[in-house]
Amino acid sequence: MTSVQDVNPRVRVIREPTNLQSLAVRLAEEIKQGAKKPFKKVIDVSSGDPHRAGMAPVSFVRQVMAACLFPELLKEQSLPLDVRQRAQSLLGACAGGSVGSYSTTCYGLTPVQESVAKFITRRDGVRSHPEDIILSSGSQKNLSFVLYIMANGEGKTQTGVLTPVPCPHTLPPLLDWSGLKMAPYQLMEERGWAVDLDELHRALKSAREHCEPRAIYISNPGNPTGHVQDRKTIEQVIRFAAAEGLILLAEEVYQDSVFGQDKEFISYKKVLSEMEKKYSETVEMVSFHSLSSMGECGLRGGYMEVINMDPQVKNHLFSMQAISSPPVLSQLTLDVMVDPPTPADLSYQTYTQEILHTQTTLSQNARRASEFLNDLPGMTCRPAMAGVFLYPRLLLPPQMIEEAKMLAVEPDVLYCQMLLEEEGVCLGAGCENGQEDQNYHIRMCVLASPDTLEEVLARLHSFHLRLLSRFP
Amino acid sequence: MTSVQDVNPRVRVIREPTNLQSLAVRLAEEIKQGAKKPFKKVIDVSSGDPHRAGMAPVSFVRQVMAACLFPELLKEQSLPLDVRQRAQSLLGACAGGSVGSYSTTCYGLTPVQESVAKFITRRDGVRSHPEDIILSSGSQKNLSFVLYIMANGEGKTQTGVLTPVPCPHTLPPLLDWSGLKMAPYQLMEERGWAVDLDELHRALKSAREHCEPRAIYISNPGNPTGHVQDRKTIEQVIRFAAAEGLILLAEEVYQDSVFGQDKEFISYKKVLSEMEKKYSETVEMVSFHSLSSMGECGLRGGYMEVINMDPQVKNHLFSMQAISSPPVLSQLTLDVMVDPPTPADLSYQTYTQEILHTQTTLSQNARRASEFLNDLPGMTCRPAMAGVFLYPRLLLPPQMIEEAKMLAVEPDVLYCQMLLEEEGVCLGAGCENGQEDQNYHIRMCVLASPDTLEEVLARLHSFHLRLLSRFP
Repeated sequence: MTSVQDVNPRVRVIREPTNLQSLAVRLAEEIKQGAKKPFKKVIDVSSGDPHRAGMAPVSFVRQVMAACLFPELLKEQSLPLDVRQRAQSLLGACAGGSVGSYSTTCYGLTPVQESVAKFITRRDGVRSHPEDIILSSGSQKNLSFVLYIMANGEGKTQTGVLTPVPCPHTLPPLLDWSGLKMAPYQLMEERGWAVDLDELHRALKSAREHCEPRAIYISNPGNPTGHVQDRKTIEQVIRFAAAEGLILLAEEVYQDSVFGQDKEFISYKKVLSEMEKKYSETVEMVSFHSLSSMGECGLRGGYMEVINMDPQVKNHLFSMQAISSPPVLSQLTLDVMVDPPTPADLSYQTYTQEILHTQTTLSQNARRASEFLNDLPGMTCRPAMAGVFLYPRLLLPPQMIEEAKMLAVEPDVLYCQMLLEEEGVCLGAGCENGQEDQNYHIRMCVLASPDTLEEVLARLHSFHLRLLSRFP
Repeated sequence: MTSVQDVNPRVRVIREPTNLQSLAVRLAEEIKQGAKKPFKKVIDVSSGDPHRAGMAPVSFVRQVMAACLFPELLKEQSLPLDVRQRAQSLLGACAGGSVGSYSTTCYGLTPVQESVAKFITRRDGVRSHPEDIILSSGSQKNLSFVLYIMANGEGKTQTGVLTPVPCPHTLPPLLDWSGLKMAPYQLMEERGWAVDLDELHRALKSAREHCEPRAIYISNPGNPTGHVQDRKTIEQVIRFAAAEGLILLAEEVYQDSVFGQDKEFISYKKVLSEMEKKYSETVEMVSFHSLSSMGECGLRGGYMEVINMDPQVKNHLFSMQAISSPPVLSQLTLDVMVDPPTPADLSYQTYTQEILHTQTTLSQNARRASEFLNDLPGMTCRPAMAGVFLYPRLLLPPQMIEEAKMLAVEPDVLYCQMLLEEEGVCLGAGCENGQEDQNYHIRMCVLASPDTLEEVLARLHSFHLRLLSRFP
């Protein structure tokens, strides 16, 4: 019989998630069972999960998908004509005209690959090729494939990945799972979480003492920092990657969620393509995008674009995909995301109003929340320019840090646990984002309905002040 | 830069898929572009993919899912009341009432786990526990988690899995990917592909010379054999697994597709639970089921039930899940699959008629096709009792086998390639199912519309006779 000693050593080193999300689920369950709590409802804003926080889905997307699932709806006049036409055309891409058939190829439906390539071409003004696009059940999944093919060596020869700190909270366990070493580079909080070239060099040198760094991971716009990289920084990072022989792994999921004044998203692909040939034709890059960008996290869909990769290596990447065919419905949703209604379409007005509403809510919420948090004693928050998170810094009372140490729990986790138990609000703890130093942070998704946000802020406010008064 | 030498050695050993499916896609694409071929349309019946082969989805399932995606439909009278009620109730299980939110836990939505446990309890008359149920994007995915946690050792200590030959064609690459050694045991073709206890002992002994077998994989009803194991066989396999310290991995996806006379599906769980305590309380087992069972392959959903597993090992299994949250919509579809309409429901009649129609088509097709194939010279086909495949044996002309060797391609693959190029019918080749001996086979999904099946048989007939006349 299998005992834990027999478990794959790579699996044994996967870091345990904090207990915050499971505690949130348990509290919600207890309330459902009738237990009395100091709050009526648990609000979980620890992940970038806007529907959970009261945001509505985009009607056009849902209408098209509903019609793809139940094509009888195509006969009804109740759905707009362009919805029905789009559904009809998407069903034409599915084997047997059904979303229930396996994907026609293991890297996705060809027409969806083509739509994605057209979208990237339009976005960047630089040609993208459908055969470079791989579709799967989300950017995490795609990233896991890339990380897994890079895994190699042991000890000092183990593959390492330069990883920003803070990074998306889903990344550290994924690196563990893939058998890769996390080689941290610190983002500059005092400069709004910018990437710093000297720090990259320092981090690389330090990493080389205990692993073989072969990639650099970038999150832009930054998850969870909300930072947006400018062209100059991107060029610097690309030159650095080129000089050091690193693959660029560019997570660009929040590219449509830039709201900072005078800020704009520029893709790594665009910058790379416009650089000298010695870069544009050689630097290996994979960029990731997903349905989470439009709040449809639960549908699990995303693509990656693979650039300048050795064809044999790319074949291995494809062979990984072959193991599990990607979900069809999420590919169709991705198609709608990258090819939304145009002004000539009936649904255009509703679609643009809904998107605008989401963007306005996001930008107002981000401003409102960061001002609110900065007003709290013992908390400072860099204003976000993009993405769906705020990532404020906690100046915790020394006694509380001591108490956490005695309980053998990270101080930021203890803070979040207490907040959750006392006020029913679930935030993320900075240590989940790879932060290991004495600077404690919390992570909060602000793409929420304004009511939900206000409720979160009010509960956080009472908790935080109560906490400070407990440790005067 | 990464070259192929740097790629994870585990990935480098993943066996390449045959080129059949990609050739089928290419031919279909060429026809679309206007190329002239000896056939108007490519028909791919190499996978268990009924919608692709002209079968229709179950209306109730699709109606409920459409309403979950676009809840505006709940307001309309056009959908039956029980559809709307079910959708409403399923949405209640989703965070924020949206299928766009992440799954509430990383092993699935709690109410769906509960529905699955109730289904198993009803099916087996033996209690199943929601906390033993893990939901994911299909049985392949779930299996990959289990295989990955078992991966350990190298050379003679590498974990091995006793694997039936033939096995599902998706299994061999998955074993490679997980870093596990395939330790084949031969199913008995002359006894309708039954499992043979002596062969299990032989296979285990032989496997122990080059790896450490720690699990036995079973496909029941058999994919691609269509064999249904009886209680006595299942008891034998369980005793064998117990005596040899093997984990039982029971793929039971085609449990609802038994049509052989006097045959019935009995789950490994049921048999195990009814055996003496020294078995029922100790033998580790994981059983797999999925949406493919009802033809909804493209939606990617399935569950596994984990029995008698060391709690620490089970925790590691859960930590694997945490890396990628399972798709919500496919979980809801699974809920409908395991909890279909009852006689009191408005949709009951339509639902049962549709299911009956599918079952009748399947059983008639299987009989029709196996009789037809047995009438062809150089082909013998065991009648299937269950599942969606026929797996006939080819007696290929020796000159053709020689020709294949010269072309460095497996003879069964060559047969399928020629069939595909000449007649536009894509079948699976037996070597994909792990068959390495001189007995060549082809794999054909018979859950197809009767028209499609007739077309496949007619084209196969002309090709096959032409081939035999070429090699007299």
